[in-house]
Amino acid sequence: MTRKELFNQIKTKRSFLCVGLDTDIQKIPKHLLAAEDPVFEFNRQIIDATKDYCVAYKPNLAFYESLGASGWISLEKTLQYIPENCFTIADAKRGDIGNTSALYAKAFFEQMNFDAVTVAPYMGEDSVKPFLDFKNHWVILLALTSNVGANNLQMIKDADGKFLFEQVIETSKQWGTADNMMYVIGATRTEQLQQVRKLIPEHFLLVPGVGAQGGSLKEVALHGMNDECGLLVNSSRNIIYASTEKDFATAAAKAAKEVQQEMELLLKQKGLTQ
Amino acid sequence: MTRKELFNQIKTKRSFLCVGLDTDIQKIPKHLLAAEDPVFEFNRQIIDATKDYCVAYKPNLAFYESLGASGWISLEKTLQYIPENCFTIADAKRGDIGNTSALYAKAFFEQMNFDAVTVAPYMGEDSVKPFLDFKNHWVILLALTSNVGANNLQMIKDADGKFLFEQVIETSKQWGTADNMMYVIGATRTEQLQQVRKLIPEHFLLVPGVGAQGGSLKEVALHGMNDECGLLVNSSRNIIYASTEKDFATAAAKAAKEVQQEMELLLKQKGLTQ
Repeated sequence: MTRKELFNQIKTKRSFLCVGLDTDIQKIPKHLLAAEDPVFEFNRQIIDATKDYCVAYKPNLAFYESLGASGWISLEKTLQYIPENCFTIADAKRGDIGNTSALYAKAFFEQMNFDAVTVAPYMGEDSVKPFLDFKNHWVILLALTSNVGANNLQMIKDADGKFLFEQVIETSKQWGTADNMMYVIGATRTEQLQQVRKLIPEHFLLVPGVGAQGGSLKEVALHGMNDECGLLVNSSRNIIYASTEKDFATAAAKAAKEVQQEMELLLKQKGLTQ
Repeated sequence: MTRKELFNQIKTKRSFLCVGLDTDIQKIPKHLLAAEDPVFEFNRQIIDATKDYCVAYKPNLAFYESLGASGWISLEKTLQYIPENCFTIADAKRGDIGNTSALYAKAFFEQMNFDAVTVAPYMGEDSVKPFLDFKNHWVILLALTSNVGANNLQMIKDADGKFLFEQVIETSKQWGTADNMMYVIGATRTEQLQQVRKLIPEHFLLVPGVGAQGGSLKEVALHGMNDECGLLVNSSRNIIYASTEKDFATAAAKAAKEVQQEMELLLKQKGLTQ
């Protein structure tokens, strides 16, 4: 999906919500465990319930890998089930030497045809570039994450007083363009969002941490939204586990709709939709 | 496997070689493609041929993931086939927020029972700790990698003139001990090895980059070996693709034996074996 197509979806659905498919076999409603593939069955019903309120889905690879080969099959089925008009993100946080990253890119962009994959920046340019060689696919690079541990390294200052996450953005933005790179900026980091926007006014940001982790959607929009929205805000647990009973899909739809309505208002205030 | 057991294996086999199972379906001998599971069949023969010359095996996850669910099955079979007395490393370079890292740890330490997994440090302490909660299992943290892109971030200096990779080591060594953490230091970085040893005299180092990437085993041993060896030196392509014909296993055995003999000499020079 291109940047233009993504922005069109945002305007059409009046939403920049990404639903995180952190599907945990321990947490899904018990009655689903009788299904042939409980993880896929849960995802299928969540997708049906939320697809009108979100523009993207983000399966978190760890949840599938922890089930071995069967988890991988559930993931493949899930990806095939997601409607064409939704942006798909493999939240995999990969990154390795060039020939290895090329294979990860193949796994996510060819073997499965995700639109995007999250990538860790620590190993530098040659670990990221192979993902950028796939046309109309995206790298979403970790810059400033929402967790406490982000402070250990990402907030280290260099000799010029620049934070490491700023270095990551400044250096890496030369590896691709706003048409094939996005950045992960945690919703708990609104005080740094303005600085991020100075460095990359055009790029889309994938923003986790709204909801369960305490970030504010309003603050994120205030400091992070640009003229093409430029935001995908992720919510996982608050939506997919809104209920853990038989009404889980209805509850997920309700939770997603509430976020969508808040997003619609924010898009209107910015003049991006009527 | 404990540190003591690993050192015992090194003394017994007179080797600190780790064989990287970067098994590429495009590169394995053509006659194996008729096997039911060509990737596993290749690995099985490589393991049989090299197990007396190495102390560790390191499957590179990207090579298996790029084949989807079937690759995952080949990986599981490979891990089960590796002899008990060999240390096993999932070269996965994972790292995510706490609850997600916990699931990756489960995938590699419970679902598959690897001894160790490589982890990327960018997201900080809470992304690494969940792996350390598994007794007798290891985190191998990326510190200074062998690729060119390592210069982009790992060599950035902070206000005190410290490189980022030094900060990574200094900060992270407090998260675990020399009994559950190792570090990745590329063989192409021998000029930094002495500094690494000042920071972490006891920890094992996993050293890629000897051979195909140009690092020198002798230099690595000179600056990196400690009283318990403290080194696992990885070689992938130079061993597993020593021949791409029907004699690939014999050729791999020969290549592994050559490295082992060089290592035996280095261990003798250090007085660690007779």
